[in-house]
Amino acid sequence: MRVFSAGVGFTRVGDHWTKSLVDLAEEAAVKSLKSSGITAPDFIIVGNMFSAISSRQEHLGALIADTLGLSGTPAYKVEGACASGGVALNAANALVKSGEADSVLVVGVEKMRDIEPGEVARALSMAENAEYTQFLGASFVSLNAMLTRLYLEEYSVSLESLAAFPVLAHRNAMTADHAQFRKAITPQDVARSLPVSDPVRILDCAPVGDGAAATVLVGENILPDCKSPAAELVSSSVATNRFSFYEREDMVDFSATKKACQNAIEKAGLTLSDIDFVEVHDAFSVVAALALESMGFSERGHAAVEGTSGAFDLDGKLPINTFGGLKGRGHPVGATGVYQFCEAYLQLTGQAKLNQVHNPKIGLAHNMGGIDTTTVVHLLRRMDD
Amino acid sequence: MRVFSAGVGFTRVGDHWTKSLVDLAEEAAVKSLKSSGITAPDFIIVGNMFSAISSRQEHLGALIADTLGLSGTPAYKVEGACASGGVALNAANALVKSGEADSVLVVGVEKMRDIEPGEVARALSMAENAEYTQFLGASFVSLNAMLTRLYLEEYSVSLESLAAFPVLAHRNAMTADHAQFRKAITPQDVARSLPVSDPVRILDCAPVGDGAAATVLVGENILPDCKSPAAELVSSSVATNRFSFYEREDMVDFSATKKACQNAIEKAGLTLSDIDFVEVHDAFSVVAALALESMGFSERGHAAVEGTSGAFDLDGKLPINTFGGLKGRGHPVGATGVYQFCEAYLQLTGQAKLNQVHNPKIGLAHNMGGIDTTTVVHLLRRMDD
Repeated sequence: MRVFSAGVGFTRVGDHWTKSLVDLAEEAAVKSLKSSGITAPDFIIVGNMFSAISSRQEHLGALIADTLGLSGTPAYKVEGACASGGVALNAANALVKSGEADSVLVVGVEKMRDIEPGEVARALSMAENAEYTQFLGASFVSLNAMLTRLYLEEYSVSLESLAAFPVLAHRNAMTADHAQFRKAITPQDVARSLPVSDPVRILDCAPVGDGAAATVLVGENILPDCKSPAAELVSSSVATNRFSFYEREDMVDFSATKKACQNAIEKAGLTLSDIDFVEVHDAFSVVAALALESMGFSERGHAAVEGTSGAFDLDGKLPINTFGGLKGRGHPVGATGVYQFCEAYLQLTGQAKLNQVHNPKIGLAHNMGGIDTTTVVHLLRRMDD
Repeated sequence: MRVFSAGVGFTRVGDHWTKSLVDLAEEAAVKSLKSSGITAPDFIIVGNMFSAISSRQEHLGALIADTLGLSGTPAYKVEGACASGGVALNAANALVKSGEADSVLVVGVEKMRDIEPGEVARALSMAENAEYTQFLGASFVSLNAMLTRLYLEEYSVSLESLAAFPVLAHRNAMTADHAQFRKAITPQDVARSLPVSDPVRILDCAPVGDGAAATVLVGENILPDCKSPAAELVSSSVATNRFSFYEREDMVDFSATKKACQNAIEKAGLTLSDIDFVEVHDAFSVVAALALESMGFSERGHAAVEGTSGAFDLDGKLPINTFGGLKGRGHPVGATGVYQFCEAYLQLTGQAKLNQVHNPKIGLAHNMGGIDTTTVVHLLRRMDD
């Protein structure tokens, strides 16, 4: 059974003090159901990482089903740290492909701004090993600082060039209504911004935020009943890496990203050169560079310089993070993978407005939990004209 | 693609002070991989409810993959409160059925005895609505006490007769090596035990415990490569109910249980009378009665009396909870659904030893999150002789 996205919906990412986790999920889900014309999906899959900490709430599948007036509908939550949205899409894809469901509503949601930042950092560290890394007090920022240093040394990359990624992200976010930071920044702004864990500065880090994104996946059998333009989900691939990055043979190697990308491309019968744009998981500047290189879109150590030269701009040879990525659109962790998917859908259905890239046929969405610990790659294809 | 369980593994349920969440998961997973002869599954799905609270750990998919020496393998966690094990099996079933994976290792795990009981109760209440029920301080025990009172009044059932379920569970657990409570109890013991929320007494409640259970699901294409006897997973069905039971039109109606059971039976092309035994989610005595009645195995209000008369004993007309159920085997919440599945497998492959029921062909496993909020029903079939 071929699988399609029949519509999407999302909230702006940011501080939603007056909305609960469930309010956000409902807003995104209702929009995607309306857009697709599917009023009663066969199944609901929720992607979320840490509602247990932020909202003292689990069991989001049934809760969101009931909130939508869809109680009865099968529903559950899927989690893979910051790749929770990506793995939720993977589970939904299998449900449609297997014929177990003709339509699946996928909702990614995270509420991060109701608890204090230190508690958010501790919650995010649950993506790392509690018995080792967490116990020693290493945060995600400090681990990414070590990764940055290793990358800069091993590939003789300049710290300054990495600013290409946040600068590009903010530029694309300026015209994205749903982005958290619609404000241009310069490489100098990045270099002068608050150091959070040397050499990582605050403008190298994707911001946490509240948000929810949703899509309705449908099988080819009911696609004719849907009312919005559709995009085909041609492959969904998940891979893992050694859990903690200090255990890896080569710490500057995103092997899960490489594997998930290769598998996705192989399953789709495509080659790397078929990809017209990439939504890449730029949780930190170094992560964007390493992900693009691991997938083979740049030579090792070259991604940042290519970024500086405009290769990844909306009108470049390979546009990335077309609505600002995690850095500009914002990173509500369990929702991020679904946001990327929705953005790829908008590009492929020609609905990206001021952020539209030229004539895209295939888009790739790359979503990561931990430091390349769980990686999910989705390939979406434009419908034949 | 037809789906089979090619082997199972589990730990005893109880207090495992010297073992971590991951140790338990590893023990069960290694046993099931050895039993099946599948050394490198294509995918790993983990069922767990509250590792974030009990172990400050999320991202269990990749963590357990790495612990097993299987880093690289796609992996994620699936959650549906106390039905987390059941929904993990549902996700794995779709992966095999769709052809996305030929083999999936499913691990259900929960570590409940490292945190104090009050915190366990608060963690379990995350299966209920944080904004309403949790906020008011209603615990699962108090909600089930209300449910018990409603059930007794509406169907004129005597409180004493409900003791049939814990008495039966303990009797079956006596000969189950992996059970938490291998000790017989009498109806008088139940009636005299500590009242925890009137009219519910401590011996009406399934105990929390540490534990992990695992199975390897495979497609028919690789079944010939497996080395243990197999059982077919003929259908997997999930349904939800109104989230909080006070919102339901009929509070004494397990509509999710009814729906999941009917769907599972219909998908399998079977009838209720084909079912030879049932593993039922007896989190509280009243829940066992209501579930059996909602599925149609007893008339409304009759399950407890039938239980008292021996109808559900190992040699009765419909054996239930053949290794002691949640009450006797124990209830490590995110693992429970997988334990039930493993127990059904043992029955259908003739490996249940002293707990073997006579000549079973079809077994049903019924796993519930919340008070019938998310229900999963699995049907397993013995391989043709």
